[in-house]
This record gives sequence, structure tokens and C-alpha cells, in this order.
Amino acid sequence: MNQDFISTLLKKVREVNPLIHNITNVVVTNFTANGLLALGASPVMAYAAEEVADMAKIAGALVLNIGTLNSTEIESMIIAGKSANEHGVPVIFDPVGAGATLFRTETSKRIMNEVKVSVLRGNAAEIANVAGYQWNIKGVDAGEANGNTVELAILTAKKLKTVVVITGKDDVISDGHTTYVVHNGHPLLTKVTGTGCLLTSVIGAFAAIEKDLVLAATSALVFYGVAAEMAAEKTAQRGPGSFQIELLNQLALVSNDQINKYSNVEKIEQV
Amino acid sequence: MNQDFISTLLKKVREVNPLIHNITNVVVTNFTANGLLALGASPVMAYAAEEVADMAKIAGALVLNIGTLNSTEIESMIIAGKSANEHGVPVIFDPVGAGATLFRTETSKRIMNEVKVSVLRGNAAEIANVAGYQWNIKGVDAGEANGNTVELAILTAKKLKTVVVITGKDDVISDGHTTYVVHNGHPLLTKVTGTGCLLTSVIGAFAAIEKDLVLAATSALVFYGVAAEMAAEKTAQRGPGSFQIELLNQLALVSNDQINKYSNVEKIEQV
Amino acid sequence: MNQDFISTLLKKVREVNPLIHNITNVVVTNFTANGLLALGASPVMAYAAEEVADMAKIAGALVLNIGTLNSTEIESMIIAGKSANEHGVPVIFDPVGAGATLFRTETSKRIMNEVKVSVLRGNAAEIANVAGYQWNIKGVDAGEANGNTVELAILTAKKLKTVVVITGKDDVISDGHTTYVVHNGHPLLTKVTGTGCLLTSVIGAFAAIEKDLVLAATSALVFYGVAAEMAAEKTAQRGPGSFQIELLNQLALVSNDQINKYSNVEKIEQV
Repeated sequence: MNQDFISTLLKKVREVNPLIHNITNVVVTNFTANGLLALGASPVMAYAAEEVADMAKIAGALVLNIGTLNSTEIESMIIAGKSANEHGVPVIFDPVGAGATLFRTETSKRIMNEVKVSVLRGNAAEIANVAGYQWNIKGVDAGEANGNTVELAILTAKKLKTVVVITGKDDVISDGHTTYVVHNGHPLLTKVTGTGCLLTSVIGAFAAIEKDLVLAATSALVFYGVAAEMAAEKTAQRGPGSFQIELLNQLALVSNDQINKYSNVEKIEQV
Repeated sequence: MNQDFISTLLKKVREVNPLIHNITNVVVTNFTANGLLALGASPVMAYAAEEVADMAKIAGALVLNIGTLNSTEIESMIIAGKSANEHGVPVIFDPVGAGATLFRTETSKRIMNEVKVSVLRGNAAEIANVAGYQWNIKGVDAGEANGNTVELAILTAKKLKTVVVITGKDDVISDGHTTYVVHNGHPLLTKVTGTGCLLTSVIGAFAAIEKDLVLAATSALVFYGVAAEMAAEKTAQRGPGSFQIELLNQLALVSNDQINKYSNVEKIEQV
Repeated sequence: MNQDFISTLLKKVREVNPLIHNITNVVVTNFTANGLLALGASPVMAYAAEEVADMAKIAGALVLNIGTLNSTEIESMIIAGKSANEHGVPVIFDPVGAGATLFRTETSKRIMNEVKVSVLRGNAAEIANVAGYQWNIKGVDAGEANGNTVELAILTAKKLKTVVVITGKDDVISDGHTTYVVHNGHPLLTKVTGTGCLLTSVIGAFAAIEKDLVLAATSALVFYGVAAEMAAEKTAQRGPGSFQIELLNQLALVSNDQINKYSNVEKIEQV
């Protein structure tokens, strides 16, 4: 995967302004919408059963996030997901807190069963719980990875027949056959709520433009990781509030030159 | 309309701190509340059918916004709207995404039918859809204006018997007879989510103080537009995150002198 | 109460990263989560009746806030509260707007009746309404205190058998027997939405670590007040947007030395 690919894809996102339909949690709605706008995408949040099918079918991607799920919203997610599936709109799913409560784990499995999910994005614990593997979890934050996330991503992608993105210190992207590891990003991302949720929506923006979803997701992760690195550098020692705002700035400002200079991604040779 | 009028009205808002009852979407609640506080108003968000009538009747204005509508919330909006009508509290309505889905268009029309709306605020596409005119729309962002927004505002105001505010590159305010165009504002407003929604609530704050709603809305638009211009100037090249925060600052800081110096409003002579 | 106690407790919070389960209003979710993260706690928002008992029992504290209450959420609060009670998890309750509508007042009383609340945090008007005393209120903002908040705190603590925290120009903490007044804080806190709600969650983070809840709450108030003072100093004249962001920064940055230097707390001698 060469760097020009990422820059070119980012340029297309900024030109096309794809409409990203988010059914996401109440904690991150504002940050997600502003992050998508900064990047050049066009966010819409719509939750009502009466309209989600209509909205999903005109979107470039549908993002489902169960961070503050409830039974009404789950039904809307299923309806929207099926509409997206029918109309060829990629569905990106973020199973926030899967494993933390039985309700989240079972809802995640139900969504995976009833909707064809294009990209599944979570931390190692969440992904393992959705796939039915053992892993540690504490609340909705991932515990320390206690296993091999590359292996987890490949196994899960094969088992669930989807592109899997596992984020953590390093990020892994795999469809079970082609696998990338992205080393971009910054620890300050863990000090701001919703940076994972926003990343999921950013993957949606890239998936709206690029049909190869492994390349789309990997490009989104590099872009987002570089933006976080630039933001951290600009706000050194100033704290997580300033980092949050600067991350929004950098999503708008990160240049092709910066992506080419700082992207740090490797392709994994599978045996 | 002279500039001292705007300054004087702003001063009164800051002195009276009118209570603005918002039933608004989950994306913009925080930004709306902070914007109203910065300006000097006193925001309250209350959504439950059990209490909205009580809250609306003690408010200086009621703001209804369907950005993330659902059937429960719509009933609350109707109840709150009727209570506001009974108690002489102005109702400001923002039909976010009318035209994007049938559910939004029909809900907007239902609210216009069941509640006496004092000011209707949206982009050209939303206003046209509420009024039943043809216009382009993509998602909840307005497409390029393909018509004459002054004409649209006047026609809609007459048809729906309300003050109409159409925002876009230029902003139009009309009750069908008296019409103003405001040239203040800044393109960065389109890069931050909820700037339109917050504007609707700011109109509410001005309408709580000034009974002539064309003058109230026009003053709110000039004030908000000047604040945006100041914020853009202060954050030049820094990105939409910084602009968002500086807009909140400027809502608190914009002075009478700045309003008098930068206000750019014209009265339209109707034929 | 000596200053080293506060510093030591803050250090423990930052080491333990207690999980704080919030069922709070839609206006402040993002700000609350970011404030808790900045401080070193681990926030989770979970609202569904299906999962709140599971989440509350693994939390270090449960925070209930009725700022945008609805009937579904109230049931979840009761379920979560009972689960927390069963598992020895402290419950912190913020009766936002009690007194502004009958629905809020009665819901607050119901929660106090059905859940054993460890700490009740509000402004004077809210606390008086929950306790059934006369006080002034306008919307969800406190009117000017028209009484003796120390007396109100002591009476309410005795009557409701809970630790009471009344915030305002000065803050009072009392369990009816031991009473502190904290003089830290800054008027800019009233210009940013959710600073009271976040404080309630910060009390939760301290209560998750320290079993003496008067000391825990008093420490939280001093820490939060000093952070606000530092933030106000750093953003002098820049406006409420900048203050909001800097407050998040300072929650992460405030040092033991600053707490020791600026803490301003007195123990009240009761007669």
C-alpha cells in the first residue's frame, strides 16, 4: 500500500463530501459530527424507526455504535442496516462495551447476525467478545491486550466474514486474508472520549469512497493517526481539552505531505 | 433598522437573562446551552411529556428542533408548543432536514399545523419543503441555492403566517411584508455542527425580549454573524475546532462597537 | 482536614482509575466523560434497563442526574440505584431543576425514597425542593441564595440521612454532624453548561476511593475549585469557550502543590 493511495483517497473524500449516516451514542454525537465535517464528510444523525431506512439508503456509509444502546435504538439499527445492505451502502459497526454487559454482547451478536456488516471496529476485548473468544475487559475501556491482536483480527474476520479493525497501541486491519498493522496514533487519544467512535465514522467516510474496504479502513487509520500525532505535537503539555480541539483542527488541516512523511503502516505476511 | 437598536436589544438580553426552553437534537445540546449561556441567556433543556408544558410556560421563548426527532419527542414538542401558545411565549421552530426524509417533512408540517410558530428558521431547502415548494436538498445540508431566497422567504411567510428566516450565504428575514437581508456571517459556520441550531436558539433569546419578531430575528442574525466574523478572524488558519470554541467566546465578548462597525443589513423594498 | 489528604486522595484516583457509571442528561454527557477521563477516572454511560444493574455493580460509583429525565430513564435510575445499593457502590444524585417543574421535584423525591443515596449534590434551591423546604428557583439555575446554606445542608442531611453538597458562591458539605465550607471555585463556572453535573461525577470518582464521604466530597470540591481557578487564570478575558476547554486541561494538570497552595476550606463548628 503506498502513501499516495492514502492521500488520493483523502482528497476524494474532501471533494465528494460523502453523507455518513450515524446511529451512535449520546456521548459522542457532537464530536463525531464535528470530526466528520472537519475531514470533509457530511454527517447526519437519524435514529427514528420511521426514517432510518430512508436515510441509510441515500448515505455513502452507515455507522452503527452501541455506546448508549437501548431497545428502541437497536430496532432502528437493524432497520437501517438492512436498508443499507439492500442498497449497497457499507455498514461500519462499533460494538462499544461488548463484554462489559451481557446486553451489549448479545446486541452485538444480533446485529452481526441480522445485518451484513462491512467493517467491525473495536478494541481487542470488544472484538473478542463479539466473536466469542476469551479476552479481558473492564467497563468499556480495553484492558491491556493479553493476546495477539493480529491473530485475533484474522480469526474474527474469517469467522464473521467481515473486515475487522482492532485498535489499541497498534491498530490491525484484516479481512482474514490481507492484513495491515498501523503504527500511527498517540496515547492522548485515550484521554478524550469518543476518539474511537469518531474513528469508526472516519472509516465510514473512507469506505463511502473506496470499495476495497481493507484499503479504505487502513487509509482512514493512517490519516486519523497522523492527525492525532500532529495534534499532540501542537498541544504538548497543554492537556486533553486542548488536544480534543486540536484533533478537530488537524482532521481539517492534515496535508498529503504530512501523511506521506509520517504514515507508518506495514503489511503482514500470513503463513 | 439602526445599529443602536441591535446593541440595545443585546444589552437587554444580557441583563434579563431570558430562560430559553429548548427541545432540540442530541448532537447540539451542549453547544446550544453553552452558546446561550455565553450570550447571556439562561438555557434549559426539557423533553418529557410530563413537564414540557410547565417548563414552556415559564420560558421567555420555546425552541423546537427536529434534528434527531423521534415519535415521543414530537408529542412533547406539540404539548410544549401549545403551552407556549397559551401563555404568549414565542415559539421558534427549526425543521432540520425537512425534505431529507418523508418523516421529517411530515413532522415539520404537523408542527406548523398544530402549533402557532412565531419564527421558522432553516436553510432554503428546509423552508421550501415545509412550505411545499420545490427545492434541492442533500441530507440535512442545503444544496446550492437554486432559487431566489428573498422570494421564498416572503412567499413562505405569507403562506404559513409566520416570520421566516432563511440562512445561507446571505440570510433573509421576512414576515411577508417587511423583509431584511443580513450579509454578516462566515463560511466557517458550515464547518461546525449545530451553528444553525444554535442560531435558532439565539433568535429565541432575542424574541424573548423584543415583540417585533422581524426586528428580533434580524438583530439576532447580525449579532451572531458579527460574532462569527470576529471568531474567524481570531482563529484564522487554525481550523474548525478552534473556531467552534472562539465562537462561544465571541458570543460573550462581542461589543456594541463591533456590532455598530460590522453590521451589514439591508431592508428590501417590496413591489 | 489537611491538604495532604486531598492530594493523596487525588493521587489514588489517578492510580486506580475508578469506573464511574453515569446516568446523566444529554446536554453534558460528552463534557462529563471528558472531565472524568482528564481527572484519571474511567467513565461509562449506560442507560438501558436491560444492563444498568450489571454496569452499576461493577462500578466504583453510580451517578444519577435528572437534567433531561424521562420516564424510561427514571426506571433505569431506580434499577441501577438498587443494584449499586446491593453491591456497596456509592450513589451520587444530582436533582437538576428540582423545583422548576413538579415532575422533577417528585422524581427527585422518588429516587431519594427508593434508592439509598450516598451524596446529594445541587444548588440551594434544588436541595431545598428535594428536602421539602421553601427556597427560590428560576428554571434550573439557582436564584440568589436567600437563606443560610450551611443550615440548609445540615437540616437536609439529617432529614434525608445522606451527605449533602450545596454548591454556590461557597460550597457546603455536610452529613448533619460534620460540616465543611469550601471557598474555591470561580464565577466562570456559571458560564459553562454542565460544570455542576461534572462536579457531581467528580465527587463520584472521589467517593469510589474514599469511604468517608464527607471527606471524599470535600476533597472533590477543593480539587475541582482549584482546577477552575487555574483555568480562569489561564484564560483571563478569553471567554467561556476557552475556559471550558482549559477546565478539562486543568483537571488533568492540577498538581499537589497547587492544591496545597490554593485550597481554601474551613470546618464549621456546630452548636
